[in-house]
Amino acid sequence: MGVSKGKMVICQSGGPTTVINASLSGALREAQRRSEIDGIYGSLNGILGVIDEDMVDLDRERPEVIDAMARTPAAILGSCRYKLTPDDYERILAVFRAHNVRFFFYIGGNDSMDTAHNLARFADAKHYDLSVMGIPKTIDNDLAFTDHCPGYGSAARFTALSIRDAGRDTEAIGNVDNVKVVEIMGRNAGWLTASAALARENVDDAPHLIYVPERSLNLGSFLEDVQRTYDRLGYAVIAAGETLRDEDGHILAHTISSDVDSFGHPQRGGVAGFLCQLVRERLGLKARFDKAGTIQRSFMAAASPVDVREAMLVGEAAVRDAATGVTDRMVTLERLSDDPYECESGLVELARVANAERHLPDEYLAPVGNDVTDAFIAYARPLLGGPLPPYARLARHLVPRLVFGQSDERT
Amino acid sequence: MGVSKGKMVICQSGGPTTVINASLSGALREAQRRSEIDGIYGSLNGILGVIDEDMVDLDRERPEVIDAMARTPAAILGSCRYKLTPDDYERILAVFRAHNVRFFFYIGGNDSMDTAHNLARFADAKHYDLSVMGIPKTIDNDLAFTDHCPGYGSAARFTALSIRDAGRDTEAIGNVDNVKVVEIMGRNAGWLTASAALARENVDDAPHLIYVPERSLNLGSFLEDVQRTYDRLGYAVIAAGETLRDEDGHILAHTISSDVDSFGHPQRGGVAGFLCQLVRERLGLKARFDKAGTIQRSFMAAASPVDVREAMLVGEAAVRDAATGVTDRMVTLERLSDDPYECESGLVELARVANAERHLPDEYLAPVGNDVTDAFIAYARPLLGGPLPPYARLARHLVPRLVFGQSDERT
Repeated sequence: MGVSKGKMVICQSGGPTTVINASLSGALREAQRRSEIDGIYGSLNGILGVIDEDMVDLDRERPEVIDAMARTPAAILGSCRYKLTPDDYERILAVFRAHNVRFFFYIGGNDSMDTAHNLARFADAKHYDLSVMGIPKTIDNDLAFTDHCPGYGSAARFTALSIRDAGRDTEAIGNVDNVKVVEIMGRNAGWLTASAALARENVDDAPHLIYVPERSLNLGSFLEDVQRTYDRLGYAVIAAGETLRDEDGHILAHTISSDVDSFGHPQRGGVAGFLCQLVRERLGLKARFDKAGTIQRSFMAAASPVDVREAMLVGEAAVRDAATGVTDRMVTLERLSDDPYECESGLVELARVANAERHLPDEYLAPVGNDVTDAFIAYARPLLGGPLPPYARLARHLVPRLVFGQSDERT
Repeated sequence: MGVSKGKMVICQSGGPTTVINASLSGALREAQRRSEIDGIYGSLNGILGVIDEDMVDLDRERPEVIDAMARTPAAILGSCRYKLTPDDYERILAVFRAHNVRFFFYIGGNDSMDTAHNLARFADAKHYDLSVMGIPKTIDNDLAFTDHCPGYGSAARFTALSIRDAGRDTEAIGNVDNVKVVEIMGRNAGWLTASAALARENVDDAPHLIYVPERSLNLGSFLEDVQRTYDRLGYAVIAAGETLRDEDGHILAHTISSDVDSFGHPQRGGVAGFLCQLVRERLGLKARFDKAGTIQRSFMAAASPVDVREAMLVGEAAVRDAATGVTDRMVTLERLSDDPYECESGLVELARVANAERHLPDEYLAPVGNDVTDAFIAYARPLLGGPLPPYARLARHLVPRLVFGQSDERT
């Protein structure tokens, strides 16, 4: 297929992230430099904006807005979760023909890559010259054929920072709140939950237990893990993936909503409340939970600088490649080295990445079932974009007892 | 009472905050400059460390640790929630006598100020020269006789940032998750929940509805508020205090734990889950909640620089005043002006502040019952220590429709 000069349409899809607008910003800047692209349209609310012909002219936005976009979380064009019907493909092509749209960019996760691939095939079957490119984004980090996904590094940084802080909080008040469960997003993949491990500086630091959805949770082992940690430290901090299942495959969430989204994915939540109740009832310990929810995927004040930069990079790369005739591909990130961290963009066929889910591999999960490995730490640490700011820890020079005598046992 | 030369003991008490260690750091630095103080002990786990004679020599900590402490959240000495028994006062005085402790500093909230005041009275009755000073801390901002409390500004900054980001997230995906409830800490006071209003830049920005515990919640009015907001904007973001009550005085939390702490305060939580369920059942909208929990009171990466500075200031002031003979007082913050913001330290009798709770005054609450006033904004804004970083918003130049024609209604 040759390169047609024409307009481009760009969409944002699926769950927002801290850096999905950085990818948009990168794509817009590159598009403004390309002679092949003579108009830049943004589709409002994902692909729905094309179907309903609700599009905005991004070329008319002020340069300051395009710059500030890179530091604005969520999806500035609006997003959607919508599975295309056969009629929709006809409508999309009619809109593209009417506006002479020749380049289509879909920033999204695996569902979006499936949609993009189907659209590329449909255009091809109708002999309409269209370059279709996927731009990866997901805090879940579950796209295959890419080292990692833009959005993950920032969510991982927030997770590590917040569990470190929640850990210090529980350590300080462990005699009141003995156990803290932090519920972490990630659909069926444990990448984000695993990133909690990056909070640790020393061996006894939180999180003490990490449970990811790649492993079913034996509730007896869980309670033993918690009791052992509490006995050793006087408190316990637990990172729990939102979709943990028991050994019968049942989602542990205490109250499971019957809502499903339009891709049939159940809407999840509640595992932390369930685990807290279990700890209270079975171990007699006090437990509370933190569930930052969507704040995990949007908290710009703790964004990873590496993540912001790479999100822009994949947006730029997608437009550059499309302008030179590439189609039906998703931009990937290919790691060249861990230390110093180096990464460059690559390409993968949309058909390969569509609907695939990449889970944590065995090498990243400790056999004991409640932790990650050093190999995971080496993988994930550079994505946070720099070390966590150092915290103080007291040397704790004990004052000799004068009242109770040396024979007393010290707490 | 004259000034005796001797050692000092300092404790941290109650719920940790982002800046309680900054107050400790400030107090230590001032103590190291005072000739009246010839030893600096830290009591482990609040007052329990004195009772059990579990104290550490803070004078032997490295200066780098005392510096880093000011940027370390939670309570580095450990905290407690413990109400003293008559026997405890005897034990505390025995420990103080044995170590020649003449200065006692309690960093805490109103319960702690009550404890400190009782200890001051007890020492006086026993003719033991002891200077007792309270150093305020609470994210709840509910101490009386001070303009505000160290800890509040940082928690308010986190609240404003996170509700702004959660708002952008919901706005982007309002067609999927229509309603978001963000549950905010604050025991019986709505100061922190109210700070969500500082997220707004424009009139339609989140949060759209703010419910504080100072007002009982009429569930019918709540549902009308949510429906009206959804009809206008296509989504709604709600800031809800964790202890909201209905008009019969019942706490709204869906599942109420029967746990109470040792001061008899019930352990609370769950209002966001309750409100989401109500919205789903009565309005048929999709609702989800974010409950950052203890992350709200510990997230150092978003600390307010003003809060960190003032936390150090009150620590320093307490030691300086105690060294010159002041006792049975809490350090306060007295605001000199809003713009430019200026504040200095003052003093209040512990007896006056002990066990008092300061709630949001009527002038800070909009009569409509779901918002705050401009007067509150003027009060709270300087405490965040600077504006929130600017975000982009598209001008949204609509592309003329070519397929559907001008007569179609646009979404």
